[in-house]
Amino acid sequence: MAEADFLARLRAIATHPAARGLMDDAAVIGDLVLTHDMIVEGVHYLATDPPGDVAWKLVAVNLSDLAAKGATPEGVLLGYPIGDPAWDAAFVAGLAVALDRFDVALLGGDTVCAPDGAPRMLGLTALGRSPRAPDRRAARPGDDLWLVGAIGEAGAGLAIARGAKGSATLLAAYRRPQPLLAQGRLLAPHAHAMADVSDGLLIDAARIAAASGIAVAIDLDAVPRSPALSAHAGDDRAARLAAVTAGDDYALILAADPADARAIEALGVGAARIGRFADGEGLTLCDRGTPVPLPTRLGWEHRRAS
Amino acid sequence: MAEADFLARLRAIATHPAARGLMDDAAVIGDLVLTHDMIVEGVHYLATDPPGDVAWKLVAVNLSDLAAKGATPEGVLLGYPIGDPAWDAAFVAGLAVALDRFDVALLGGDTVCAPDGAPRMLGLTALGRSPRAPDRRAARPGDDLWLVGAIGEAGAGLAIARGAKGSATLLAAYRRPQPLLAQGRLLAPHAHAMADVSDGLLIDAARIAAASGIAVAIDLDAVPRSPALSAHAGDDRAARLAAVTAGDDYALILAADPADARAIEALGVGAARIGRFADGEGLTLCDRGTPVPLPTRLGWEHRRAS
Repeated sequence: MAEADFLARLRAIATHPAARGLMDDAAVIGDLVLTHDMIVEGVHYLATDPPGDVAWKLVAVNLSDLAAKGATPEGVLLGYPIGDPAWDAAFVAGLAVALDRFDVALLGGDTVCAPDGAPRMLGLTALGRSPRAPDRRAARPGDDLWLVGAIGEAGAGLAIARGAKGSATLLAAYRRPQPLLAQGRLLAPHAHAMADVSDGLLIDAARIAAASGIAVAIDLDAVPRSPALSAHAGDDRAARLAAVTAGDDYALILAADPADARAIEALGVGAARIGRFADGEGLTLCDRGTPVPLPTRLGWEHRRAS
Repeated sequence: MAEADFLARLRAIATHPAARGLMDDAAVIGDLVLTHDMIVEGVHYLATDPPGDVAWKLVAVNLSDLAAKGATPEGVLLGYPIGDPAWDAAFVAGLAVALDRFDVALLGGDTVCAPDGAPRMLGLTALGRSPRAPDRRAARPGDDLWLVGAIGEAGAGLAIARGAKGSATLLAAYRRPQPLLAQGRLLAPHAHAMADVSDGLLIDAARIAAASGIAVAIDLDAVPRSPALSAHAGDDRAARLAAVTAGDDYALILAADPADARAIEALGVGAARIGRFADGEGLTLCDRGTPVPLPTRLGWEHRRAS
């Protein structure tokens, strides 16, 4: 509630069209796309995660926002609390790897002294360009809901990072998420609305619907299953519900006109049609045609980025 | 040392020209100017400062970086840890006042849950446009050093905020600094180099010299004295040395060709010629022609923004 109230107050002053009502992944000014995401030790990553992986994740979560706007990233600004020299040095080394991998420039930022004993709180601003950035608020009744990317692997990877047994593939999905930049650029011209899946497939799809003032229905059985995750957690409904509410996937979801279905399939990005938008409001879920009660928790509420 | 080492590691990967070697107030890509500054409770502001003033300061310190690049601000992205609802609500109210005052849009950002008991750490990214952003690294031997803005008032205001007696004018200089945006735009066409004075006049002038690979000499007696500060702290050399090392002034300093002196005076921005650049390195200080030993502390080292 404190967060909802705070966001409502911010939205009341964020009246510039570029702010998109603080409901989108990024701000869009002309062809410029800007996002700022923070990650906090103990919330978005574990204190035991390697610093190079934390740097990767900080870059990846921001670039994923740009991917959802069909943008090509150009640069980042880092907000960093300096503390333990060895950790910080490993972080910069990991930052260099991530920026090099995605061909993004470190442009600037700020450093401060880390408060003693406080969890690390890292901030990054990413800047990119998109010829046409889809808006999260522009899904239309009748649109298909498409998904690109694996769902649930990172959630299992988090449990593995915490000590559970499991594969390196799943651990990597949690520690080294891959922003779907090329896919986002290909999909953007077909998307009425697009967003990344950072907090959970169900909650992020529901947010597109809410932001667009319509309803969305998801076919649980149409959500592609990751072979690595199926081998790890099985394929029953509980496992599949865990996957669609786990978060940290950095997949893309989009709303597109059914007339674009063949064009989207022809992009070769592995897009799966997992539901549709309709007049009304809210999220409904089915499994092989049978309605499924919504889980109490649709995803990570408290990590909502604006 | 930890910070110097960390910045050296960052600089090694910040090779894009827009990063300006992480030595400038802001990154510059074409006409786009981008900065990210953080403020931390107990370091950049007091836990007892009113939240509306903290919001003002967060905006002002970032816009001051844009002012130093002759930029017109367009928007900001906020990185905010949500904690105490009353404090947070007062912060947003103050943010609205500051953004309205400077005609800047809130474009986006991110919120996280504030870690329990940790000092607040607030981040802001500001975006502006400048037709020609002066570089901190481009002062030339023979250039004059000019100052626009009051020096030392905020340092006295900080002591007043901590409980010392003093005037509302000085307290306001600390709590509600004024970024010199109009002055920055007027000065930029005349500036070889320009920077804002955030950490102290001496240290920030020395940084222009160091970034430009030359020396700078400052005439202490040429630094204009604020009537409010003189009434508060007197005018002896100790008081004037305290003023030029106090920081938080958000004044502007620039290096300009002596041939531009009359044009700069004619701008009507109250520019004072307080020194000159020369071949060599380092900072020297004089008072009425007599060399003055440098104070041990030239300003705030640990708050260096890149």
